[in-house]
Amino acid sequence: MTQKVVGTGARAGAPVVCVIGGGQLARMMQEAAIPLGIELRALVETEDGSAGQAIPYSTVGHAEDRDAIVEFVGQNVVTVEHEHIPDEILREIGSRPSADALRFAQDKLIMRNSLDAPHPQWREAHSAEEIDAAIVELGGTAIAKTPTDGYDGKGVAVVTSAADIPWDWADGDRILLEEKVEFTMEVAQLIARSPSGEVKAWPLVQSTQKDGICWEVIAPAPVDYALAERAEEIAKQIAEQTGVVGVLAVEMFVVGDRLLVNELAMRPHNTGHWSIDGAVTSQFEQHLRAVLDLPLGDTSPTQPWSVMVNLLGSQLADPREALGEVWKQDPGVKVHMYGKEVKPLRKIGHVTVCGNDLEDVRRRAHVAITIFEGKES
Amino acid sequence: MTQKVVGTGARAGAPVVCVIGGGQLARMMQEAAIPLGIELRALVETEDGSAGQAIPYSTVGHAEDRDAIVEFVGQNVVTVEHEHIPDEILREIGSRPSADALRFAQDKLIMRNSLDAPHPQWREAHSAEEIDAAIVELGGTAIAKTPTDGYDGKGVAVVTSAADIPWDWADGDRILLEEKVEFTMEVAQLIARSPSGEVKAWPLVQSTQKDGICWEVIAPAPVDYALAERAEEIAKQIAEQTGVVGVLAVEMFVVGDRLLVNELAMRPHNTGHWSIDGAVTSQFEQHLRAVLDLPLGDTSPTQPWSVMVNLLGSQLADPREALGEVWKQDPGVKVHMYGKEVKPLRKIGHVTVCGNDLEDVRRRAHVAITIFEGKES
Repeated sequence: MTQKVVGTGARAGAPVVCVIGGGQLARMMQEAAIPLGIELRALVETEDGSAGQAIPYSTVGHAEDRDAIVEFVGQNVVTVEHEHIPDEILREIGSRPSADALRFAQDKLIMRNSLDAPHPQWREAHSAEEIDAAIVELGGTAIAKTPTDGYDGKGVAVVTSAADIPWDWADGDRILLEEKVEFTMEVAQLIARSPSGEVKAWPLVQSTQKDGICWEVIAPAPVDYALAERAEEIAKQIAEQTGVVGVLAVEMFVVGDRLLVNELAMRPHNTGHWSIDGAVTSQFEQHLRAVLDLPLGDTSPTQPWSVMVNLLGSQLADPREALGEVWKQDPGVKVHMYGKEVKPLRKIGHVTVCGNDLEDVRRRAHVAITIFEGKES
Repeated sequence: MTQKVVGTGARAGAPVVCVIGGGQLARMMQEAAIPLGIELRALVETEDGSAGQAIPYSTVGHAEDRDAIVEFVGQNVVTVEHEHIPDEILREIGSRPSADALRFAQDKLIMRNSLDAPHPQWREAHSAEEIDAAIVELGGTAIAKTPTDGYDGKGVAVVTSAADIPWDWADGDRILLEEKVEFTMEVAQLIARSPSGEVKAWPLVQSTQKDGICWEVIAPAPVDYALAERAEEIAKQIAEQTGVVGVLAVEMFVVGDRLLVNELAMRPHNTGHWSIDGAVTSQFEQHLRAVLDLPLGDTSPTQPWSVMVNLLGSQLADPREALGEVWKQDPGVKVHMYGKEVKPLRKIGHVTVCGNDLEDVRRRAHVAITIFEGKES
């Protein structure tokens, strides 16, 4: 039986970053923190969860427990791996990004109302009558969204009337309705900003969803240069306007030669996981550099194409059983397992393949995921 | 105060690897273990040492304490990060590599006597008379070595008579004497072997020493193809003969078009650190794959040139103070800090730079190291 009590307080000399949240994003931050000699501490939901398995200096605590968070953070730099921390706590601890910046990612109505960026057509509604009227104005079919707390397809529905909204809501609740955009492609622009105002962007990527969850990411997105340049300008503008610190992900629809902002995230994002294996500086290293106000790293890709595919659940009891089979088929696949229990459509890992030929790289990534999914091929 | 008691025993489903030793090699194994979902456990010298800072499932214990090691290992796969574990313990726990293989790396006289490989001229001596006679036969100047426990220039001396040997020795002690090879270059061939017999080699690298300690590594070594091919053949032959499992490093002298084996290590090695940033599969990931008997990874370089330079001590209290200055000068430098206290000539970190132009890449790596060393430039 292996058992250990970890020391108290900082080891001398190590820069310290505290992260609130114990999922795979904090786990992958730790992969970047170790080589840099940064001491990452995590406030985790469970001791042996995804991040707790990898971060010796973790503390169990709830993301809404003010006292636990204040004690955990102390005087250190603090960041977050999700948006579900109350605003007043974020203000008290001086989080990076700040509470003011995070409002744009936490509340889709604040984003739509305040962001200087191209949006899809949208309406705010508070009753069945307002919803039905908005749907008519938006063309008879619309996307209904809860302004807060939606993720991975939850709190999002295609509707033709107020009766179609699948979650519990009451008169007076804020409902966001958006036009159903007939997009040619979904893309994401990742960018990082430091408190000093330095900004660096990775190449634009293409993302493909499956049941509303990010599924495949191709870096760089196969689009023309002018579009990629415009996407970077939009993300830079949002970074400046919001004053974000750390990684910002701007998910956008491509409609012909137009770009429309879909969602924002202010933390490392699923559409940036490819950068661990395919860029000089990964989004996790960059996030740590940004929140510590260190110079930002080179975001160049190291290979012409990188393709990331998520492992969304598996029919295997544990996908790690399939490591041997995956590597027997293809010894160059980069595997990322999150140490999470298997549940249907849950993000439990991802693979990345890099190389010169996009179609070959895509095929290899999908073959590996199919094996990890435990499906008959 | 952050404090944590880590759980007991394995999380369900995780492949487990136990490593004896708590230095930077175990720390860098953890960087490779986390993404693969491998649970690495370390037997460390101190709880907050280099590996203890990064590995939640660590246990404090001594590498010569049989009972502590047997309890730590249990029924799991076990490997080592140094050669200082007694033979009978290695046998009892079934280490990978095995005790029989490790003898070749632990004892330079066993290596010289038994290895089917090209060696420098050498003699074994047990008294001042035998030493002096051997030195004459070897040309008047020789390299004296302790057969065991020497490392990083310790237990090695250039001698012209027995009186020159700088360490305590007594009549009857075994002394290895080797010709002073006038080499044109020092190279290292890294290779990994799994229990199933699969073998994969990285490109040959050039290494340069400073005071007997590895200082700079250039990957690939700037040598002709025929020489690189012969180096790989020698390493493969040694891997087969010794039955090594895991990473094997074969350090060799280049003398004209000849290769002479200098030293062996059976674990990830300083001359392979470049592979973290410059190869599809790092030596640390490959070592874990090999000891778990999983298929070995693609060893191709991802960029034309990688240069690694060690940080050997620093005039700064902690080199991490200089992260900002290093990255201000060059945002693309890959930094690896070991979380160790600064001591003169101690290996406390390394940097790697990858790119297309060897001279530019070398220059960038040395500029970064000079800043971390805290020297006036």
